[in-house]
Amino acid sequence: MTPPIVVKVGGGAEVDRTAILADVAELVAGGQPVVVVHGGGPEIDRVSAQLGVAPKHLTSASGTRSRHTDAAALDAMQLALCGRVKPRIVTGLTRLGVRAVGLTGLDGPLVVAARKTAIKVVEDGRVRVVRDDRSGRITDVEGRLLETLAAAGWVPVLSPPACGGADGPLNVDADRMAAAVAAALGAGAAVFLSDVPGLLRDRDDPTSVVAELCAGDPEALGWAAGRMRHKVLAAQEARELGVPTVVIGDGRLPSPIRSALAGRGTAIVGGATAVAGDALEAGAAR
Amino acid sequence: MTPPIVVKVGGGAEVDRTAILADVAELVAGGQPVVVVHGGGPEIDRVSAQLGVAPKHLTSASGTRSRHTDAAALDAMQLALCGRVKPRIVTGLTRLGVRAVGLTGLDGPLVVAARKTAIKVVEDGRVRVVRDDRSGRITDVEGRLLETLAAAGWVPVLSPPACGGADGPLNVDADRMAAAVAAALGAGAAVFLSDVPGLLRDRDDPTSVVAELCAGDPEALGWAAGRMRHKVLAAQEARELGVPTVVIGDGRLPSPIRSALAGRGTAIVGGATAVAGDALEAGAAR
Repeated sequence: MTPPIVVKVGGGAEVDRTAILADVAELVAGGQPVVVVHGGGPEIDRVSAQLGVAPKHLTSASGTRSRHTDAAALDAMQLALCGRVKPRIVTGLTRLGVRAVGLTGLDGPLVVAARKTAIKVVEDGRVRVVRDDRSGRITDVEGRLLETLAAAGWVPVLSPPACGGADGPLNVDADRMAAAVAAALGAGAAVFLSDVPGLLRDRDDPTSVVAELCAGDPEALGWAAGRMRHKVLAAQEARELGVPTVVIGDGRLPSPIRSALAGRGTAIVGGATAVAGDALEAGAAR
Repeated sequence: MTPPIVVKVGGGAEVDRTAILADVAELVAGGQPVVVVHGGGPEIDRVSAQLGVAPKHLTSASGTRSRHTDAAALDAMQLALCGRVKPRIVTGLTRLGVRAVGLTGLDGPLVVAARKTAIKVVEDGRVRVVRDDRSGRITDVEGRLLETLAAAGWVPVLSPPACGGADGPLNVDADRMAAAVAAALGAGAAVFLSDVPGLLRDRDDPTSVVAELCAGDPEALGWAAGRMRHKVLAAQEARELGVPTVVIGDGRLPSPIRSALAGRGTAIVGGATAVAGDALEAGAAR
């Protein structure tokens, strides 16, 4: 089978999801298997507001900002991703003639994670330990369900949560999920689409796109703020786990997937030390 | 392959979902493929209340009471079923060693429905036409996705909505969905489990269980009120579409699936005029 392309669809308001889904449909019609991975931060915020759950965030000692997923936030996340974002993507693909199947990491279970039981965070300059967070680090991807579906012509539409075993559903970063799935499937490419042209050297200058970024390069994280930090980490991880083509692309362009594969955006290069598919455990254990 | 058993799991508070899932796990461990179908009325009501959406109901001219699914109610339904009920069932099965895969009719799309564009309802004794309802009548089940999963050892966990094509997601009755799926798959049995011992002649007398009910018998609907009306219609439909064993069983018993198959509850008999799997279209067109 042709190795699949894993496409991570961002939730930002400016992302042209219609164009992304049309691009998926054209690729699939041409015989290219595609796996779609989505998050949906803005929709999670909307559902949280409707439920009266205030979104909370954590900043780690290394400066990475993440959602604080307590039980109420995990519930809001599942409602938003499984009850709104995923049905919209599946319905959108179906209208384009694509046979799409919505999944989470719980199904199979196809993405397994280990709960982060104690997270060191920085708050007002002080270090504090958070113990009620229901998020995890991906430890395993069981690719057989995705492979079975892809081989039969279905397009999986995958999102968090992951399966935490006795800890139940766990939040994981959707970009990291896309990277782990791309590695486990031996994907030909992983494309991360959001509402920016790529990684910017100067976030206020959209022409300052970094065309190529080395997988092992820590300097890149200095340029990346907010969500882009996760995206760069995930893209570097995908490359280090052996995915041959990894691009952080612009989800606002026409044909955004093919534009990214044609060189628009930030390509992650070098650093591939492992063969995709065998490398996940090594990657997760880092 | 062994014909699957389709198990409809009711959402009532007294239903022992732990016992049902344990029974599914034992059947699956013994080589019996199972397809789980679920609704979740009480959880839909809870989500509606949290979102500030008042649940509304319609009473048809024939006296059947159904949820009035306007756009806000459809949203609440999808949030509840896909974001809460389904992940709980999938996680519960996973803990028992069952490889479960959560799906809706949108996926594939595996359950297709035609929107009811104008519904005649009775309100305060007057007939009124409702046009904003997003519910549908099932017209087609594409069994291949379920068969592919079941053949590989996965247990599908299916719920509404169905796919309405250009009309988007549509609400369909989960009991009717279970009947349609059982027929399309050529299931060996369809078991409808809820918080009653079966169809009661006298709803206030739990010992008045009707042991056998003829598929074509309209009298049965006289005994059935509320949700049980849908259940009897769905069970009769499953039988008429050729499912050899159809039981309305007690979801509060130990081993509730095997209890139902052993004769506890209301068995639907007679009336099979078609061969399961070929009969859905004829059934849907009635």
